[in-house]
Amino acid sequence: MSTDRFVVTYRIDAATEAEAHARALDLALEQTVEIPGDIVPAGHIADEIVGRIDSVRAAESAFLVDVSFSDETFNDDFAQFLNVLFGNSSLKAGLRIESLIPSKGLLALCGGPKFGLAGLRRQCGVAKGPLLLSAIKPMGLTTAELADLTYRLALGGMDLVKDDHGLTNQRYAPFKERITACVAAVEKANRETGGNTKFVANITAPQDLLRARADFALQAGAGGVMIAPALTGYDVVRSLAADPAFNLPILSHPSFGGANVIGAGMGFSHAFYFGELQRLLGVDAVIYPNFGGRFGFTEGECRAIVAGCAKPYAGLAAIPPCPGGGMTMERVPAMRGVYGDDVVYLMGGSLLRQKEDLPGACRALARAVGRA
Amino acid sequence: MSTDRFVVTYRIDAATEAEAHARALDLALEQTVEIPGDIVPAGHIADEIVGRIDSVRAAESAFLVDVSFSDETFNDDFAQFLNVLFGNSSLKAGLRIESLIPSKGLLALCGGPKFGLAGLRRQCGVAKGPLLLSAIKPMGLTTAELADLTYRLALGGMDLVKDDHGLTNQRYAPFKERITACVAAVEKANRETGGNTKFVANITAPQDLLRARADFALQAGAGGVMIAPALTGYDVVRSLAADPAFNLPILSHPSFGGANVIGAGMGFSHAFYFGELQRLLGVDAVIYPNFGGRFGFTEGECRAIVAGCAKPYAGLAAIPPCPGGGMTMERVPAMRGVYGDDVVYLMGGSLLRQKEDLPGACRALARAVGRA
Repeated sequence: MSTDRFVVTYRIDAATEAEAHARALDLALEQTVEIPGDIVPAGHIADEIVGRIDSVRAAESAFLVDVSFSDETFNDDFAQFLNVLFGNSSLKAGLRIESLIPSKGLLALCGGPKFGLAGLRRQCGVAKGPLLLSAIKPMGLTTAELADLTYRLALGGMDLVKDDHGLTNQRYAPFKERITACVAAVEKANRETGGNTKFVANITAPQDLLRARADFALQAGAGGVMIAPALTGYDVVRSLAADPAFNLPILSHPSFGGANVIGAGMGFSHAFYFGELQRLLGVDAVIYPNFGGRFGFTEGECRAIVAGCAKPYAGLAAIPPCPGGGMTMERVPAMRGVYGDDVVYLMGGSLLRQKEDLPGACRALARAVGRA
Repeated sequence: MSTDRFVVTYRIDAATEAEAHARALDLALEQTVEIPGDIVPAGHIADEIVGRIDSVRAAESAFLVDVSFSDETFNDDFAQFLNVLFGNSSLKAGLRIESLIPSKGLLALCGGPKFGLAGLRRQCGVAKGPLLLSAIKPMGLTTAELADLTYRLALGGMDLVKDDHGLTNQRYAPFKERITACVAAVEKANRETGGNTKFVANITAPQDLLRARADFALQAGAGGVMIAPALTGYDVVRSLAADPAFNLPILSHPSFGGANVIGAGMGFSHAFYFGELQRLLGVDAVIYPNFGGRFGFTEGECRAIVAGCAKPYAGLAAIPPCPGGGMTMERVPAMRGVYGDDVVYLMGGSLLRQKEDLPGACRALARAVGRA
């Protein structure tokens, strides 16, 4: 049952429960009325608008505090929802968002993933087993060179081939030319193999261009799009996902958002930022750095992301985690142990290294993850 | 002299200079080609597209590394510039952006502040001394109540009165109704006092609404607008500032961006995030939490912000810092010592507390900062 208040669990650093209570009260004021408690007008503002502390409980070396906020505070505006969630409090150390229970108003705004894991499986024609994703790069290659990589990755049977997140509209491979050529490349490979590879276009762009790129990708026959919400603004992703006319899966990329999760005791938990938030935005698959690669995410943090992507969550579709960032064949067994089958494995550089037989490298990956 | 490469100074945590070099090389690859160095194609990609390490030098408990990137990597796309600046590397601990030297391409994209400190002084008719800014709140008041606060703050001679950053388009004070009423309120007060108070409208909003709100504020007679770039996306601010048809000062609010600066050794330096970056965006005044208030910024961090706002910077106008967040009369002497005259003092709750004589409280503040 959803209510007219959304509930945020904050992790608050405090020495005592009394201090945690005091910090929670500060937060409930800071995020709403932004005036000292003693001058908050009595009545509706004090009773409904100010955040309400629902519970304070001790957790390992900190306190978990549930604070609820009225849907009236954001009124159908997702940017303002984020402001109420963590606007000024993002500037205070020792405050971290652990999780969120959506309200009616938030769910009216956030329809959630159109595809999610189940839809992506249908889109790719892969009923079970992990999905396989690769990326074309490096930046600086021509459209023809990128399309050739796309073709060979598709020949190898990757389910999804995506633009590297640094490919936008540079002169060496302009957006429209590149998407057209790469879609043609997967179609050619699919005709030859009987396969069903989809091309995913990076549409991360200034806001006035992004929607046109989304529409171009859709009309050009792309099988999905990728956006980095921390670069474009989060509402851009939500509004695209919420548009019934836009009927492609959306992959989210973590570029530029790192500070939101990597600082101890600040920002957002991995489960919230890469799980709950993405599902609220309507993202269908979430890319993030895998443990043990060239990024510092731990196995525990990655397991938390998996849980955030998969758990029942206000009726929003489950989405697959897409661990990437230095994935190699050697690491596949360890990753299989953590991720199992409901995952999109993202392998880029490690495949491209085997450029003399890219299709063979793809097939070896498929075998390693139990797909062939 | 500007060049076709922009230069970023990263602070890199490393035990030895060799380790710092290795991390810098990883970064130069990560931010551009995103493949291992040994498979980067020779020629233009290796020579120009990959980030170039210009210098590595020891700094206190870390290393400062200058890396330059070609304008070709972002091609007139500010979101992609941010991606090259810190996309994937934002996810790695022990990397922080200290400062940036803009390139020709970046300066073509970023015209810088239209007003800045000098323009804001002209706009407000205040040739010297600090400028004074207050905010109307709390969220939940009606338009009439907010307009009444605006009127009394203007009667007291505040140079600028702004929406609290939580006021967007809620039903209790819808945007158009509120801006119209608050502009009328400052005009009424100005007629009575002969003063020149300006109203600043919060236009932070989902991207498809923001521009319409900016235009409405301009046409309604507002004297400025406020945007929280971390909520809207950074390019939204840049593109508004770069539009010659939009001729109002832009104030930037730090909401939701805290994780970018408060984590040790990660994100951005205070001088870059609240100084250089804001000037690149074209922001005319930057709001941030003052030292010694309810936020944790130190005096040293605030002095760094002042330097970032004021130093000669690629010909971009200097902008005033707007320290806020719990400013009280008691703290004025300490703030005067740090900020001097080229500042916008933001006092909100502390003035509103004196609601029985708001104009008198404003005049006391003006006297305390040497304006009356």
